[in-house]
Amino acid sequence: MKILAVNAGSSSLKFQLLEMPDEMVITSGIVERIGYDNAEFTIKVNDKKVTEKLEIKNHKVAVHLVVEGLIKHKIIKSLDEIKGVGHRVVQGGELFKDSAIITDEVVEKIKSLNDLAPLHNPANITGIQAFREALPDVIQVAVFDTTFHQTMNELAYLYAAPYEWYKKYGVRKYGFHGTSHQYVSERAAELLDNPNAKIIVCHLGNGASLCAVDGGKSVDTSMGLTPLEGIPMGTRSGNVDPAVLMLIAAKENKTYAEVLDDLNKKSGYLGVSGISNDSRDIIDNMNKGDYRSMLAHKIQIKRIADYIGSYYVYMGGLDAIVFTAGIGENSPEIRKGILEAISVLGVTVDEEQNSKRGERMVSTSDSRVKAFIIPTNEEVMIAREVIRLENL
Amino acid sequence: MKILAVNAGSSSLKFQLLEMPDEMVITSGIVERIGYDNAEFTIKVNDKKVTEKLEIKNHKVAVHLVVEGLIKHKIIKSLDEIKGVGHRVVQGGELFKDSAIITDEVVEKIKSLNDLAPLHNPANITGIQAFREALPDVIQVAVFDTTFHQTMNELAYLYAAPYEWYKKYGVRKYGFHGTSHQYVSERAAELLDNPNAKIIVCHLGNGASLCAVDGGKSVDTSMGLTPLEGIPMGTRSGNVDPAVLMLIAAKENKTYAEVLDDLNKKSGYLGVSGISNDSRDIIDNMNKGDYRSMLAHKIQIKRIADYIGSYYVYMGGLDAIVFTAGIGENSPEIRKGILEAISVLGVTVDEEQNSKRGERMVSTSDSRVKAFIIPTNEEVMIAREVIRLENL
Repeated sequence: MKILAVNAGSSSLKFQLLEMPDEMVITSGIVERIGYDNAEFTIKVNDKKVTEKLEIKNHKVAVHLVVEGLIKHKIIKSLDEIKGVGHRVVQGGELFKDSAIITDEVVEKIKSLNDLAPLHNPANITGIQAFREALPDVIQVAVFDTTFHQTMNELAYLYAAPYEWYKKYGVRKYGFHGTSHQYVSERAAELLDNPNAKIIVCHLGNGASLCAVDGGKSVDTSMGLTPLEGIPMGTRSGNVDPAVLMLIAAKENKTYAEVLDDLNKKSGYLGVSGISNDSRDIIDNMNKGDYRSMLAHKIQIKRIADYIGSYYVYMGGLDAIVFTAGIGENSPEIRKGILEAISVLGVTVDEEQNSKRGERMVSTSDSRVKAFIIPTNEEVMIAREVIRLENL
Repeated sequence: MKILAVNAGSSSLKFQLLEMPDEMVITSGIVERIGYDNAEFTIKVNDKKVTEKLEIKNHKVAVHLVVEGLIKHKIIKSLDEIKGVGHRVVQGGELFKDSAIITDEVVEKIKSLNDLAPLHNPANITGIQAFREALPDVIQVAVFDTTFHQTMNELAYLYAAPYEWYKKYGVRKYGFHGTSHQYVSERAAELLDNPNAKIIVCHLGNGASLCAVDGGKSVDTSMGLTPLEGIPMGTRSGNVDPAVLMLIAAKENKTYAEVLDDLNKKSGYLGVSGISNDSRDIIDNMNKGDYRSMLAHKIQIKRIADYIGSYYVYMGGLDAIVFTAGIGENSPEIRKGILEAISVLGVTVDEEQNSKRGERMVSTSDSRVKAFIIPTNEEVMIAREVIRLENL
């Protein structure tokens, strides 16, 4: 059966049509720059990308383009073939301990969390509503980035801030990338043949987070109330002393909000190197002798190793480290750097395997702690959730 | 010979007169509420506290009281007996890689760092200037809270923020409590009979920080640009997602600066428990069944264990954990909680020793990683620095 996995941003709509339960991709595509003059719709037809530039004034139009495009390009014969739509939603707060079949009530609940994810949840809702109108008889499911981390206990998720902030406004660590952490850690447990394994997932993309998974459950993660917290990323600083805001606001005559924006958009790889937010550029420039690129690369590795040490102690042991997402799957330099930085935990890199791509073990066979590359697949995870919730 | 160790705050002046090199305390005292109506001067005379309430309009007056008090109470016969004065200075930035004999130039350098420590450095300077006037012929030395951490490398001290913030404004991790971390780690290395030992010092007072000491050098520490960063404290939050400021400012109609103030003054033990910033009250209330006090206690332990895990990995091993300062020296519950939380590192608590006070080993004799209580003594460390710099 065919399931559509959707990820709606503020001006974009990504989708993937999957044949389930085989987990095969039938097609995928993206509508970009919705509401702008240069909008376009791209869809894969027989493994070739077909792009149309046209007016796409809102998400409703975008969804119609997608749905009609599937018919027009003969990917499906009838809309009845689509048995379910799964939507990625960034922030499920404490309201969603599981994925949810979308109803008016569920939409209202997601809206009630807008303050916690002002950039993401409203866009996700726009996508949901457009698909509910376009395919009114098809089951729609919300799959949250935060749900997997709802198994964290208070000691991991509470800030040592006024407790009322938590009770009144929901100020706590939520964590993100949950769909990816779940997918990858489930696969790692399979490879280890151990459902009780202690696993640390390094989801390293332009956004990046770590997750400690103990017996299939997230027990800690590096992102916090927002995706700013944790390890440095492409343009995000990760952890800093919050007093940095005060000093920079005074020195640069900025508002604190502007400094916070700098921490989100001008920091991380970009801020340290001054060159790029892309790890490939950082490594290229480091190899050419650029000092700040070397710093950006090594700071990243050091801070990731710091978290791995914390999670090792918190879980009281470690069976495997897993690398996933753009950088995690494709950068041997970063994987090697991290594994060498945590060598005291008993992990040894297999240089040959580490130089390759795709799912594989990258530690030596005698390594006490194993290391893997496991490509993430959030769309498959979303499609699985649609089927699980609907008993399809 | 007699050395005076001084710690000047914005409205206080603490001092200790030491006989060196024996490191014996001759007397100690404090001038409090300088410039306020209810100022008072307390000094120990024959182990009894003598307190005078009187007008003390500024630090100059306070210093004269101290100096004349030493004569009046026959602790010394003549001011000539004082061979040196050591001053605690909070922020030495990157300008002071070592303690410094105070000259006009040194005072100017300390002033140039006022932006990095607006609450502390100006007060420290006030104390220095008053003692230079009162004892013009006596050597004065500045001993910085940050100096010991100047051995950290860039990977530990740089934030993943715009690099220009570091170059232009000195935005980086400095760390504090350096005098204490140095004193305690030097003593631990002696007890271990290993100058190359890998040691983690837990300085746990109302302010609290951890330090990783490898071969006598600080290689990482938990406080940052300011003492807000790191583990939770009496009233400070330690690490939070900086985006918390944005949410709380909006929800409570506060400025970001006010929220930052809440993170410094209404968080930590106080914020989580809602009861007290004092660990003794937290433990008392936890033992009476108070849920939020239990949370405050356990969050503290969890976050300390997180850092210990990071430092274990960063140093590539660990020989000893050392507890010091008010809570570290006096709370068996917190020591035990931390040591149990890091048991995977191979440390076992000696319950009987852990229930006692004073310098001692609190791990069992077969514990792979050792644990110690070592009372800190910043005044002795300051006096030692005066002697070392002056070859006295």
